[in-house]
Amino acid sequence: MKKALTIDIGGTKIYNGIINESGEFIGEIEKHSTPKTFEGIRDTFKEIISRYEDEVDVIAFSTCGAVNNDNNKILGSTGNIAEDYPKMDFKSLSKKPVFVENDANCAAWAEHIIGASKGMPYSIMITLGTGVGGGIILDNKLYKGKSGAAGEMHFKMSRNKHRHCTCGSWDCFEAYASGTGLKHTAEEISGNKDITTYDVIDGLKKQDKLMTEIFNCWQNDILNGLIGLSNIFDPDVIVLSGSMAEFVDTDYLTQKVNEEIVTLPTKVVKAAAGNYSGMIGAGLLALGVTK
Amino acid sequence: MKKALTIDIGGTKIYNGIINESGEFIGEIEKHSTPKTFEGIRDTFKEIISRYEDEVDVIAFSTCGAVNNDNNKILGSTGNIAEDYPKMDFKSLSKKPVFVENDANCAAWAEHIIGASKGMPYSIMITLGTGVGGGIILDNKLYKGKSGAAGEMHFKMSRNKHRHCTCGSWDCFEAYASGTGLKHTAEEISGNKDITTYDVIDGLKKQDKLMTEIFNCWQNDILNGLIGLSNIFDPDVIVLSGSMAEFVDTDYLTQKVNEEIVTLPTKVVKAAAGNYSGMIGAGLLALGVTK
Repeated sequence: MKKALTIDIGGTKIYNGIINESGEFIGEIEKHSTPKTFEGIRDTFKEIISRYEDEVDVIAFSTCGAVNNDNNKILGSTGNIAEDYPKMDFKSLSKKPVFVENDANCAAWAEHIIGASKGMPYSIMITLGTGVGGGIILDNKLYKGKSGAAGEMHFKMSRNKHRHCTCGSWDCFEAYASGTGLKHTAEEISGNKDITTYDVIDGLKKQDKLMTEIFNCWQNDILNGLIGLSNIFDPDVIVLSGSMAEFVDTDYLTQKVNEEIVTLPTKVVKAAAGNYSGMIGAGLLALGVTK
Repeated sequence: MKKALTIDIGGTKIYNGIINESGEFIGEIEKHSTPKTFEGIRDTFKEIISRYEDEVDVIAFSTCGAVNNDNNKILGSTGNIAEDYPKMDFKSLSKKPVFVENDANCAAWAEHIIGASKGMPYSIMITLGTGVGGGIILDNKLYKGKSGAAGEMHFKMSRNKHRHCTCGSWDCFEAYASGTGLKHTAEEISGNKDITTYDVIDGLKKQDKLMTEIFNCWQNDILNGLIGLSNIFDPDVIVLSGSMAEFVDTDYLTQKVNEEIVTLPTKVVKAAAGNYSGMIGAGLLALGVTK
């Protein structure tokens, strides 16, 4: 059975592990802080690769940032990481084949092969974390668009420039459905600038009326986004992943989405491939594992 | 060269013609009023088919309503037509093969093969008429979703239940971007319930300040929708068709979309396959003509 060295890189941490074609890790998963500079990141990659490349068939990267359709280059800016990181020449890092894909796309692929959307040809995965990520699987293939950047969940929720988005535009789904969005919704409704997402979730568990109202407003924004995606894609399933997904009520969302869409019923479920789904998906994609 | 008898059915008119594999009509296009009853519609189909089926290889329908992935059945309600029209057994209407597809999907295919999105693998077509239709071409294939109903442009433009949509839900793109949407925007801004889309377009041409403001508000809603679709799909092009498309400024929309998206630049253009693009696309799809 073939194996991949799989490396996940985000703004704060780099993880690496070895994975087989069944999506199982062989040995330990290692964790590093993400260096602040391009050279630091490249040296970390080289160090990891030098230790493992002889054991594996391919090197797989799950990375922040959009990745081109040749799976070897970051497209443009990636936010919370060294500014010149997109210049990384991934192919030059190893004598083995190198494969690069966006982390949300990798996670969506892991869900498709071994997780919550297994056996379903059409799925949309939404990562609800500090921001919002998206991965789209259509007809059992990862959908990338003309340049590789598809699946950006930046569609507008309001006509009236109500809330800024990290992308520079206004009122994107990300600005409402993310953890950051929940904090902003909480600030707006409570009038308290110091309120945290923890306050909301804690209050929700204690059935606090104001915190429940805030939570429901946030969940309703998520619902509105899922209705649109369901009408556009007619998917088998929408998978919610990320740190904020554990709080949402997927049974409620499934019912409400199906009450409002004009396409045929879909379902909303939580991710099932685990915390390392980005690494798993990158490895499976690099190894060519399809449904 | 193979030929298709192509029939377009909408709420008010039925058209038929014969088309070849180059997307060219052979002979005249005929026009009929759409009968009010299921039986009336079926008899009209049978009458048309009986006259032409011996001359052609396949019968192609471009129809209102979503169509299943086997291209032989309408999925659910279709609005402005006999209530039981979705029960139509298309296959039984002819001894020749029968192919059925949604009219917006057919029009998108015509644009893809002979029109404004020719040569571009990834395109979204939006029909701006009384309502809004959508057709999605991905990787040179018509995208239909799990059941065939994909491409419904019912995604929400507002968080606050501002405007009802014909689909039964609130604040869909259709409710703002359509001709009906322009009328509602005009009513809201002018306070005049009797204002028409004609008044707005006429006033725009005469550089009337209020009418220009109304038009710009409507065009801005269209822009907001196109930004979201561009970020989700990363398309080569967005094609605007339908009676209302002639009034929009596609150069302006292209510039504004590209200023706001996080994906790579796209373009917004007007449809080029003409008024019978539904019939052309149905014929080309039925004849198996691909890029």
